[in-house]
Amino acid sequence: MTGFGLDNLPYGVFSLPRGPRRLGVRLGSAVVDLSGLGGHLAAASLNPLMAAGRREWTAAREAVVAHVTAGPPVIPLRDVTLHLPFEVADYTDFYSSEHHARNVSEILRPGSPGLPPQWKHLPIGYHGRSATVVVSGTPIRRPSGQIAEGVFGPSRRLDVEAEVGFVVGKPGRRIATTDFAEHVFGLTLVNDWSARDLQAWEYRPLGPFLAKSFATSVSPWVVPLDALGVVAPPPQDPAPLPYLRPAGPAFDLRLTVEWNGTPVSRPPFASMYWTAAQQLAHLTSNGASVRTGDLYASGTVSGPARDETGSFLELTRNAAEPVKLADGTLRGFLANVDTVRISGRAFSTAGGEISLGSVSGTVVP
Amino acid sequence: MTGFGLDNLPYGVFSLPRGPRRLGVRLGSAVVDLSGLGGHLAAASLNPLMAAGRREWTAAREAVVAHVTAGPPVIPLRDVTLHLPFEVADYTDFYSSEHHARNVSEILRPGSPGLPPQWKHLPIGYHGRSATVVVSGTPIRRPSGQIAEGVFGPSRRLDVEAEVGFVVGKPGRRIATTDFAEHVFGLTLVNDWSARDLQAWEYRPLGPFLAKSFATSVSPWVVPLDALGVVAPPPQDPAPLPYLRPAGPAFDLRLTVEWNGTPVSRPPFASMYWTAAQQLAHLTSNGASVRTGDLYASGTVSGPARDETGSFLELTRNAAEPVKLADGTLRGFLANVDTVRISGRAFSTAGGEISLGSVSGTVVP
Repeated sequence: MTGFGLDNLPYGVFSLPRGPRRLGVRLGSAVVDLSGLGGHLAAASLNPLMAAGRREWTAAREAVVAHVTAGPPVIPLRDVTLHLPFEVADYTDFYSSEHHARNVSEILRPGSPGLPPQWKHLPIGYHGRSATVVVSGTPIRRPSGQIAEGVFGPSRRLDVEAEVGFVVGKPGRRIATTDFAEHVFGLTLVNDWSARDLQAWEYRPLGPFLAKSFATSVSPWVVPLDALGVVAPPPQDPAPLPYLRPAGPAFDLRLTVEWNGTPVSRPPFASMYWTAAQQLAHLTSNGASVRTGDLYASGTVSGPARDETGSFLELTRNAAEPVKLADGTLRGFLANVDTVRISGRAFSTAGGEISLGSVSGTVVP
Repeated sequence: MTGFGLDNLPYGVFSLPRGPRRLGVRLGSAVVDLSGLGGHLAAASLNPLMAAGRREWTAAREAVVAHVTAGPPVIPLRDVTLHLPFEVADYTDFYSSEHHARNVSEILRPGSPGLPPQWKHLPIGYHGRSATVVVSGTPIRRPSGQIAEGVFGPSRRLDVEAEVGFVVGKPGRRIATTDFAEHVFGLTLVNDWSARDLQAWEYRPLGPFLAKSFATSVSPWVVPLDALGVVAPPPQDPAPLPYLRPAGPAFDLRLTVEWNGTPVSRPPFASMYWTAAQQLAHLTSNGASVRTGDLYASGTVSGPARDETGSFLELTRNAAEPVKLADGTLRGFLANVDTVRISGRAFSTAGGEISLGSVSGTVVP
């Protein structure tokens, strides 16, 4: 079972050699070309469809399902090049896993209170660099920077962050949590590559900057919300302020992080404290607008167990407790030519297991 | 003297009622339409010209000077609408005034060491929201947010930050300070509106987010580097790492902040510690790319004296020492219907005084 059946049909942008970019959906290990369906589906990126709003999204999905059901020709994935499925407007990143936030505090700031004082009052987030959001498979050049006072060189503590990204279709501001599905088109897997040595030196008081701006990888597939079953959100104590209520839907997504082919962690998205609906409500609560193509990521997904953490900082306790890969080698942080692949599974509206695809990248010197 | 003569000619985008957007240059209190010159000058934004690179910028300026010298028809400013002169790609903001950084530490974190430990080793910066960069004159709706634990409401400590913004034309990465003028097209005035109460509660550990994402105003005019005289950069001790050397050109810009028409401060840009060339070199030092339309701001410009500070947080010591405006009223932070106008003067390549125009905004409830 690949998880790419009729109950999934994630959208992507592909091209054949010397051909133009076209919208497609993934079916098994192939792509179905949607350009013949016309309208927004004939575009070269998802943005026009995403801008059209929920009613059009549902109509497009019905048209796609009918098309795929009719048995159209398919193009094997190995014959196509996959591109960024949408043009990224603003990129923001949250910090909404309590386990991750506690782990990071404990590892990097021993003796500090576990969570920042506002952590359970609002979903902490920051803006990232949209220019460097790249599609899965793009090589990740090891960043350089000030790895310590007076020392400029290649990062020695290059890390990953396994996240889920939400893609805004319809623009808006002051978006209530109950309007989440009117504005968010779908989700994608994200790896927010992070240079921990750059981060430790640069981040006070304005937050991470060059430690994360060199690359953020996303899956080539955007799974529409229409495909996804929802679950009850996690309990929240204290109760959030009214603008963050109700918490909105949550998603039972199950990620797997593979390091050079060895599964090292299985982060459970259902353990996130803040929901994607609350993140969007917070992001727009001050009057800020979101646009078509905005990408906001969940923050590193970490569950309570060591082998459920979404970063190697947590998995290896800042390299103090390396992990052993299948080839017998040990790793603290990323070595050159290492490949990290984050994949995900979800449940469809009918309850069947579907795939979120994967996002991968190889570190080059 | 308006400072908008032949030695200045800043670029902007204007429209006549029901007319299309066109490129123009400012001459006195009028606009000269450039669309008849064709090529990149016939576009509806500066981006195509900016993408073309330094040689084209110089050629375009020569063509514009020749055109203006020939005595073309001019359109009074009062007859046109001015728009954002370029499409903003990524927006980043630095923190490069030592006086500002020390003042902020002293006011908000009394007893803390004046500067963060890395402050003199690298130009601290962060990413902001490009969707909410707006042109001068756009009303600024007072943001709401968590102004304290458990309290959501309109910000009570709404502030300004007087800054200078640099606009990237030619894309690049790992840009040496000596290549600054190959990549940066020009500069513009920036007001990075800031809600201090939101900021104080939200900013640890990932930096400012909603406190600044609701609006950033820019002047409608981009002054090309070709128009600007340069001065020696400020002394830096300790010597920066090699990737930040030489410091590159500095600019003797003189800002004025008016609060409801009362001049309250004159921030001197020449007092900035880090140069714009160093900021760009740092921003791209990790391998991150910049694109046409990237805007990076200097950080609040504050000189050593109280009436040279670029924020009201500093000017009024966090409202503890209000300023008196010309109408006799006192202000700590911004009241509704207050208007702030930041204007600037500079020196041309020939040494004459020229204007940077102004950026203004009125706070609405």
